[in-house]
Order: sequence, then C-alpha cells, then structure tokens
Amino acid sequence: MATGPSPVLSTRQQLVRARDAAPRVGELSTVQKNGLLIAMAKAIEGERQSILAANQRDLESGTAEGAVRDRLTLTPERITAMASGMREIAVLSDPVGESISEWTRPNGLVIRKVRVPLGVVGIIYESRPNVTVDTVALALKTGNAIVLRGGKEAAHSNHCLVEILSGVQGLPQGAVQLLDSTTRDSVGELIAARGLVDVIIPRGGAGLINFVVENSVVPVIETGAGNCHIFIDESADFDMADRIVLNAKTQRPSVCNAAEKLLVHAAIAANYLPRIAKKLDDAGVELRGDEAARRLVPSIKAATEEDWAEEYLRLCIAIKVVANVEEAIAHINHYSTKNSEAIVTANEVNARRFLRAVDSATIFWNASTRFSDGSEFGFGAEMGISTQKLHCRGPFALAELTSSKYEVMGNGQVRE
Amino acid sequence: MATGPSPVLSTRQQLVRARDAAPRVGELSTVQKNGLLIAMAKAIEGERQSILAANQRDLESGTAEGAVRDRLTLTPERITAMASGMREIAVLSDPVGESISEWTRPNGLVIRKVRVPLGVVGIIYESRPNVTVDTVALALKTGNAIVLRGGKEAAHSNHCLVEILSGVQGLPQGAVQLLDSTTRDSVGELIAARGLVDVIIPRGGAGLINFVVENSVVPVIETGAGNCHIFIDESADFDMADRIVLNAKTQRPSVCNAAEKLLVHAAIAANYLPRIAKKLDDAGVELRGDEAARRLVPSIKAATEEDWAEEYLRLCIAIKVVANVEEAIAHINHYSTKNSEAIVTANEVNARRFLRAVDSATIFWNASTRFSDGSEFGFGAEMGISTQKLHCRGPFALAELTSSKYEVMGNGQVRE
Repeated sequence: MATGPSPVLSTRQQLVRARDAAPRVGELSTVQKNGLLIAMAKAIEGERQSILAANQRDLESGTAEGAVRDRLTLTPERITAMASGMREIAVLSDPVGESISEWTRPNGLVIRKVRVPLGVVGIIYESRPNVTVDTVALALKTGNAIVLRGGKEAAHSNHCLVEILSGVQGLPQGAVQLLDSTTRDSVGELIAARGLVDVIIPRGGAGLINFVVENSVVPVIETGAGNCHIFIDESADFDMADRIVLNAKTQRPSVCNAAEKLLVHAAIAANYLPRIAKKLDDAGVELRGDEAARRLVPSIKAATEEDWAEEYLRLCIAIKVVANVEEAIAHINHYSTKNSEAIVTANEVNARRFLRAVDSATIFWNASTRFSDGSEFGFGAEMGISTQKLHCRGPFALAELTSSKYEVMGNGQVRE
Repeated sequence: MATGPSPVLSTRQQLVRARDAAPRVGELSTVQKNGLLIAMAKAIEGERQSILAANQRDLESGTAEGAVRDRLTLTPERITAMASGMREIAVLSDPVGESISEWTRPNGLVIRKVRVPLGVVGIIYESRPNVTVDTVALALKTGNAIVLRGGKEAAHSNHCLVEILSGVQGLPQGAVQLLDSTTRDSVGELIAARGLVDVIIPRGGAGLINFVVENSVVPVIETGAGNCHIFIDESADFDMADRIVLNAKTQRPSVCNAAEKLLVHAAIAANYLPRIAKKLDDAGVELRGDEAARRLVPSIKAATEEDWAEEYLRLCIAIKVVANVEEAIAHINHYSTKNSEAIVTANEVNARRFLRAVDSATIFWNASTRFSDGSEFGFGAEMGISTQKLHCRGPFALAELTSSKYEVMGNGQVRE
C-alpha cells in the first residue's frame, strides 16, 4: 500500500497542498477518474482486515454508545457496500466539461457556459466512516481535491481509509487528505482558508452546522436540519394518509427527512385524529399536541412552543389542528427548517397552493417526506440536503459539486 | 407621492419587514411585476426635479471629488436612462416559476425543479445612485424583497429614489427599503441577519467586499475585483492584438473588466513589444514590466512583485515576457483575481488549452476583456460579476437572483 498524507504537515500546509492538487485533479479525464474510483473500490476490499482492525480501535478507545456507536461500527458487509458505492459513482455520467448553454451575440462573439470543478472541497463531519468514502468518490468524480475533517471518535477508521484511498496509483498527490481530528484547530484553519478552499460542507448535527455557518469565511453549503411537516387536508384519503404518516415518522426516525409534525384539517380532525393517534401509539411514537388535538385524544401530551420548532430525530411527533391549507402553510413557514414538507389531499387546488407557497427545499403531494434523498431522486448518490437557497437547494450530488466558467470565442471584437 | 419607509424603524425592524414582505413579492404575477416596473419608471421621470434637488444636496454637502463626484452626479439624461433601464427589465422574461427540469421515477413520483425567488436580497454599495434603481428593478422582477445600504455620500439621492420607488401603488409594504447609510451599524446588522436575509451582494471597492465576505453570516455573492490579463501568443495577429489591448486597457480603465497585465510570448516579444509599448504610451498609459520587457523597451519602469497582483483601475499596465502558453497560464492562475482574461492567438490548440486551464470566471479568445458584462452577454441587465465559484460565476443578472425548489407529486408512495 502506498503511503497517505504525511502526519507532519500542518493543516495550513495540507490546504496549500490541496490547492496545488486541484488543477491536476481537474484535468483528469473521465476515463482516468473512473479508473481511479474502481481502483479505490478494489483497494478498500483488499484492505478489509486492516479497516476492520482500525475500526475496532475506534470502538475500543472511544466512548461512543447507542446510535453513535452504531453509525461508527464497520462490518465486512458495510465495507463491501462502501466499495459498491464507489463503483456506482464510477458509472454515473461526468458533469465536468458539460456545455450548460451556448449562444452567439449579434457582434459574432460565441459564449459558452461550461461546467468546471469547484476546486478544493472541504467536508466536516461526525462519526460515520462511510461518509469518508462517499465524499471522496463524489469529489474525485467531479474533478475536485478534497480535505476531510472527520470526527475524533472515527479517527483510526478514517486514517486507515484515507491512507488506502490516497495511495491509489495515479491519483495526484494532495487530492485526498484527512485533517487532524484530535483538535478543533483544524476546523478553525479550514473555515478561515479563503482562497485555498472553495466550499465547505458541514454534515452532522445542528451545533456543528451552525458553528461552521456562523464562523466560516469560505462559502458554505448548509445541510441537515429537518423539522418536517405533514398536512392532512380535508379531502385526504385516510388510508393513504396513514401510510405516509407512519412511513415518514417511523421508517427511520433519526434522519433529517423524517416527519416531526402532523397538521390535521379541522373538518376531519374528529374522524382522523383518533385513528392516526392509535396507529402512531401502536408504533411506539410519543404524541404531543395542541389543545384541539388533546380534546379529541386526551392521551396526547401538551406541546409547548418549543415543540413546534424542535427536530426530535426520534419516535415523537407533535400534532396540531389547523383551520385550512392557509393556516397549515403559515405554520410551516414559521416553524420549519425549510427542508421537506408534505400535503396529503385529493384537492388539486390546495395541493398546488401548498407546493407553491411553502418555502421549503422539497414539497411532496401525496408522498412520504422520506423521499428527500439524492438516491431516491435518481442522482445515483448524495452529498447532502441543502437547506440554504444559494448554489443548490434540497438533495444534491455531483452537479452541485461543480461551478461554471464562460468561454468566449471571437475574431478580434472590441467594445465600442 | 406615497410615503416611503418610515425613518423611525431600526435596521432590525426593517429587515423583519422585508422578511414579511418577501412572500407577498414572490406571489406577484409577471404582469403585476411588469406593471410596477413601468409605474416606477414613470414615477422617476415625474419626480425628476425632486431627484435632481436631492442629488444637489449630496453634491453640496459632500466632499466627493473627481471620479467619485462624477459617479454621484445625476443629470436629466441620467435620470431618463434609469427609467429606461426599468422599462427594459420589464420586457425581459420572468425566470420565476420556470420549470428547470422534470422527471418521473420508477416508483411513479414526478419530480419537478422550479425556479423561485431567493426571498430577501441585501445590497451594499457605494456612490452611484443608479445602482439603487437598477437593483430594485432586478429584485422586483425576480420576486424578491430588497434592502439597500448605499453610500452616505449619496444619502439624499438614495432616500429620494427609494421614497419614489417604494411609494408606487400596489407594491407590497416593505418590499423596497433603504437602510441607514450614516453609520456602519446598519451594515453590521445586515450581515448578521441570518434567517432574515437570504443573500448579500456587495458592490464596490475591494475593502468593502472583503469586509462583507469576511464578516457576513448571511451567504454572499462576491463581486468585483479584476486583475485581468491579456496573453499575446506567438501566432497572434498583431493588428488584432493592438486593437484588443488598447480597447481592454484604455476604453474605460476604472472598471473591473479592464486589462491590467499584458503577457507576451518570448518568440514575438522583440517584434511586438516595442510596437504595442509605443501605442500604449501614445494613449497615455504608464508602462511597467519585467527585466525581459525592459531590455526590449528601456522606457518601461521596473515592475515590483506587488504590481503583478495589483488592480490599477487607471491608465497603467504591467508587461511580462513568458516562454509559452503554459507559463502564461501559470502566471495568471497565480496572480489573477479570477475575473476575466484573454488570449490572442491563431493557434486553436493553445486557445483551447488556455480556455480550459485558466481558472477565471470568463476567458476570451481573440476578444477584449471588456465584454465581461451582463448587457454584453445579452442578459438585458447586470447585477454584477461574481468572482466566487458558488451559486454563480461571471456576469450575473435575473436568473442568479433566484433559487429553486423541488415539487414532488405522488399517489401515496412511501419508502421501503
């Protein structure tokens, strides 16, 4: 195995190295990049034992418990899945070099807008080692250098993975580097590195994301938080509503596209609320709600003002009765983190109104919020879900890891 | 004339008002928005005398001199031009509501990516009052609320213009507001207003732009600086090279797309450099250069290391002799502000290499860098030239003042 990044480099030196590597990564052909991805997948499979051993050290040395421990743990199957993910990204089409648009001006100038790599992508993330492999694959496919700042609880696993990935023959030196995860200094250096790093993507909890957004002078793509709502309109099919609510709340409650709030139209609340409350309760979901909901289902606990803004990320949901679609929209636009929301209705006018007026990244009509996901959207992969409005919004993957440039072809034109 | 924003509101209150206005502006139809733009144009023409009087107060009370005074000064003709600019934006097509892409997933979900307003746009700018009118028109056309923080030297002019624009019948209250230009506090409040403001666009000098980029927690579109290069390759047509260099350097030297550096291929330097040096000198351009250039034209002053990075914005150019296109590319990628660069060459291989490898927003082959401009690109208007890679890069106008959302239509789909 080739050697990975030298541990004696400072964070700043690593970032300069990434900056220097960026044009060399950007000039790799699609064939070269896909070959590197397949070589990386093979290397990961070939080094399965050393990856598991490194992971074991993290599990033994750390204090990770419960869900964090689960996210940190690698198994032979998970390693195979990481390698398969790289191979899947190898077969996706390469956005770099794509002509986005082209036109000719009256003076004869031909203007072409071309997709180009961003340059250096910085990722700050927490415990999951598979993020290391996924993001390296996405960055390489889009011709970017990448610097990774993983969580310290996964330090051994990430070090081992980056040694393997960065050691693949033919990869420009400095294209894939792991920053020091033992101190916050490396985060500080990374978010201050304007001119060296082109974008930082924080992936993790709200604390991490807020810290990066508020302190970075490098442009950020904000990801993550999801206080997602489902509104059951007057005309909703109750069976469909049940399926969607149960799926969005219980299928994987710890993720950002899981439902956290249920709004029910007043005209059907007396019929629908007791029914869905029973099903949610049967599924182990804690129920909170406003006065109107509690009058219909007395076992529902009183929701506080904080409940309406909270992202539970567990089997808990808060229920509110609303007068109409307008009240649902106003409530959502006030409390939502603007990630994903759904309306269940047979009324197309209300559906169109909801789709248009709710100010969130993804809005569903008669489908589960759990579909807010790059793979489910057909992107073949996912970098995250952007909850900001600049650059990209909603699930994003390869195309959003690129920028553009204008190439202008003339024959001596000057400006009058 | 209706009354404009009340002077008793704090900056924070104004930003909250803009946030509240944003959905109402976003729901205006294209016909309504165009009607408002035409009404604004008429109101500006109708209030010509009061605008000129307010501008006179700025000119009298201020200490603006030279170019700043010129940029600040309004004339009846300039007022007519501002009104005409609004009418031109009224006839451009409306990007809001446009379907960017749409596809159907194997499970039957229909996913549509739709263009939506950003929400609240903040502009920080310096002396030119026409920026007030231009940016209000662009923001309104794209369904955004706008908060303007102009320079204090134009305070009376801007106050008068915003009173007129915001007083137009049918415009949602709070859609167009001027922030206090007498203190830096309003800038501080604006760049801290995460959640209230969706994007800040600083327009002005490097000091202003750097301050905003380094301190804003609201996403920024960085604009402006242009240390633009022209490379004259071995095979260049000398007459074409002359035209392009003289146009790019002298037609309007104070703007960001004016040329600041001239790189000349070593093989033609002895023939071309004395010729272009004479023409530049005749045009009143101060010449600086490296050793090789000075050996060929002794009257050229020695350039320092600082010269290669400086944006002169005046009749001065620094000249360097380079061995080949690769050295030209390396020099540009090291010193450029990544705005606009040009190659003059008859060699298509070198041109393609330059277009691809130079890491700048706009790259010209056989044309003047002065064409880096929204109007010259055919956008019908311009908000600025982005020198960052996220969201937009190069000249930008209406489309870049929008975001997107995903509308997903199903018939009860849930995730497995």
